[in-house]
Amino acid sequence: MRTVEQHLDEILGAVPQPAPIELAVLDAQGLLCAELVTSSRALPAFDQAGLDGYAVRSADIATATVELPTDLAVVGETSAGSAQVASIGAGLAQKVAVGAMLPAGADVVVPAAWTDQGAARVQVYAALAPGSYVRRIGDDVAPGDTAVQIGTPIGPAQISLLAAVGRERVAVRPRPRIAVLCAGEELVDVGATVGPGQQVDVNSYALAAAARDAGAEAYRAGIMPNDKRRMVELIEGQTLRSDVVLIAGTFATGAPDLLQEALDELGGLSFTQVAMHPGPVHAFGKLGPNNVPVICVPGEPVAALVAFEVFVRPAIRLMLGKRQLFRRTVQAVSAQQLLSPLGYRQYLHGQVMRHPDGGYVVEPIGDGDQAMLARMARANCLIVVDEDVTEVSAGGLVTVMPMLLGG
Amino acid sequence: MRTVEQHLDEILGAVPQPAPIELAVLDAQGLLCAELVTSSRALPAFDQAGLDGYAVRSADIATATVELPTDLAVVGETSAGSAQVASIGAGLAQKVAVGAMLPAGADVVVPAAWTDQGAARVQVYAALAPGSYVRRIGDDVAPGDTAVQIGTPIGPAQISLLAAVGRERVAVRPRPRIAVLCAGEELVDVGATVGPGQQVDVNSYALAAAARDAGAEAYRAGIMPNDKRRMVELIEGQTLRSDVVLIAGTFATGAPDLLQEALDELGGLSFTQVAMHPGPVHAFGKLGPNNVPVICVPGEPVAALVAFEVFVRPAIRLMLGKRQLFRRTVQAVSAQQLLSPLGYRQYLHGQVMRHPDGGYVVEPIGDGDQAMLARMARANCLIVVDEDVTEVSAGGLVTVMPMLLGG
Repeated sequence: MRTVEQHLDEILGAVPQPAPIELAVLDAQGLLCAELVTSSRALPAFDQAGLDGYAVRSADIATATVELPTDLAVVGETSAGSAQVASIGAGLAQKVAVGAMLPAGADVVVPAAWTDQGAARVQVYAALAPGSYVRRIGDDVAPGDTAVQIGTPIGPAQISLLAAVGRERVAVRPRPRIAVLCAGEELVDVGATVGPGQQVDVNSYALAAAARDAGAEAYRAGIMPNDKRRMVELIEGQTLRSDVVLIAGTFATGAPDLLQEALDELGGLSFTQVAMHPGPVHAFGKLGPNNVPVICVPGEPVAALVAFEVFVRPAIRLMLGKRQLFRRTVQAVSAQQLLSPLGYRQYLHGQVMRHPDGGYVVEPIGDGDQAMLARMARANCLIVVDEDVTEVSAGGLVTVMPMLLGG
Repeated sequence: MRTVEQHLDEILGAVPQPAPIELAVLDAQGLLCAELVTSSRALPAFDQAGLDGYAVRSADIATATVELPTDLAVVGETSAGSAQVASIGAGLAQKVAVGAMLPAGADVVVPAAWTDQGAARVQVYAALAPGSYVRRIGDDVAPGDTAVQIGTPIGPAQISLLAAVGRERVAVRPRPRIAVLCAGEELVDVGATVGPGQQVDVNSYALAAAARDAGAEAYRAGIMPNDKRRMVELIEGQTLRSDVVLIAGTFATGAPDLLQEALDELGGLSFTQVAMHPGPVHAFGKLGPNNVPVICVPGEPVAALVAFEVFVRPAIRLMLGKRQLFRRTVQAVSAQQLLSPLGYRQYLHGQVMRHPDGGYVVEPIGDGDQAMLARMARANCLIVVDEDVTEVSAGGLVTVMPMLLGG
């Protein structure tokens, strides 16, 4: 029997770090930048007007007020996008649009609202410090500046900046590819008629959804065939196209079954008892010609999703390059007494809410021993009861891992 | 001049409610359920063992203890998936795997760990209440029960439940389709050489990324051609394939330009000043043969993303059916003095952190008037300064809208 930490450490220590790939910037959204992006350009690329108005010399309007405006001759107009380099002398103004090149000689842009908006001549109502409403070349980014650091999550603002420095593609940490398989003689596909003693395969759906939610590129490879030769071929095929293979099934630690024999042929996994509830039987190993990590989680759907949270989600986040592997936890007041077996870490689904007096209160849902899907679907957190705790009294504090889906 | 609320209300009151669509359950992930899913099945579908052990009659083991075990004859074994209906009589036991059909006559499953795990005979070490470790038919879901409610976000647990009740497809609120266009004579494509006075089109990238992040299916329709006929065709074409068209550009409220003439031909938008900083010029209207909402936001990249947050993201969330349209806000202590124009709601990018003594502290980044992409990319929040506030002193409280990207 090993602890949750021992099993997790084995998995985290063994998952690969997929090599960075180059993606079009929009496809990079949500991933971590894997290169130091420096700019070869200045941003802005030229001195420009920061808003619509009149480019003037600040010295010319030093005494301008509403009562005593400064009157200047308007010598021309520059629109955004114009490549014409204008210039102004003393006592002159150039009408400019936001983003338009600042005429040579001008050092401020007077907002149109602070003038009479004249065409041939303009009355300026206020003095401005030099540089006002002017965007100077390189103010935002100078050539050679870092635009995006390694490890930065790529969101809309980073995409904006990457486009501005001229990048159509960027190197990122790729989404790990995860194949999801289920084993169990009782399993039938969701569309099929369910005969006596049979169960619908829910795990390949639920685990693929959970893996996508965690940031992986997940695909359902379906139910394991009931034949050792075909089983070996299927698992080996998945190891060739995946970074991780995830298998959900009910494994006996005693008598080896067909699946364990198939896994042995591919290099062998060690099935171990992990001191946790639900679902103590887990396995991990590297299989196939590429030594691909294979994680086996319990076949009970509730236990499978708990095992995913505890072992697989942190592994996916590690492969994505994320610094924060684990969900944040909060302490909450338990609304009920909780009992937990000594020496086992117990995970219970629950509903956590804010307490009117501050802090959180949590109510367990269902029973960790049972495959209660409808109850699990109403939960918004996992309650974690540590190995050395056998009882949490009603009103006592307990650790809670919120898992909110955006509503 | 209108308020932020007036402009937002016009947009939210006019966006369509796209009709529900049916998707494969895995593709429904992250969307809201648009039908009441009831189960025609019982879950579990039959009485079954809750763990590996021995199915027995509770009455037979009423006196069992470690010191004085009850000895029973093992008459057979049921594996998971077996359709064979076994039965036991008084004084007998059947070995069962987790998920296996409970033999007729048995009312408890004794965990293997509480027995000597015998093959022909078994010694039971503990008494159990009737029903222990047995999952009864319909315990989780009875036929006719609601599996997923209308409006529930579909996550891994809901996908698990949908599969279990036999659903391969489910009706959901679809992702709104949003076309992103940019207007501006100064704009060139990201891959192109940037000539004097020209700017890279960053908005079609940044806004498409922001729209995807908000849950839309967004596509870049690129830079508006510099010809009214082709402009009309492009915009009209986008209204035919989209639920919303988003246009970023620098619009003058005075002299109408090419774009405004093109929009007028399609039905006309009203360009209005919205009392906000950055980017006061906005427009909204319904255009083309299908009366598709067209939202115009300022062309400055920082102002465009602020306008997206304020007007477009809530509209996307409304179309998705989400109850919570707006990001949550927190009150934070401002680390600096903030000045804000009277009568305008000011949005400033900032960095918000937890204060060591509790609460939050926020530091503004850059200057709302300027197109500072690199600074914006370092921000993790928007600071919102209300219309009637002209100054927030250092140490004063200010409203902050965190916009964290997962790291």
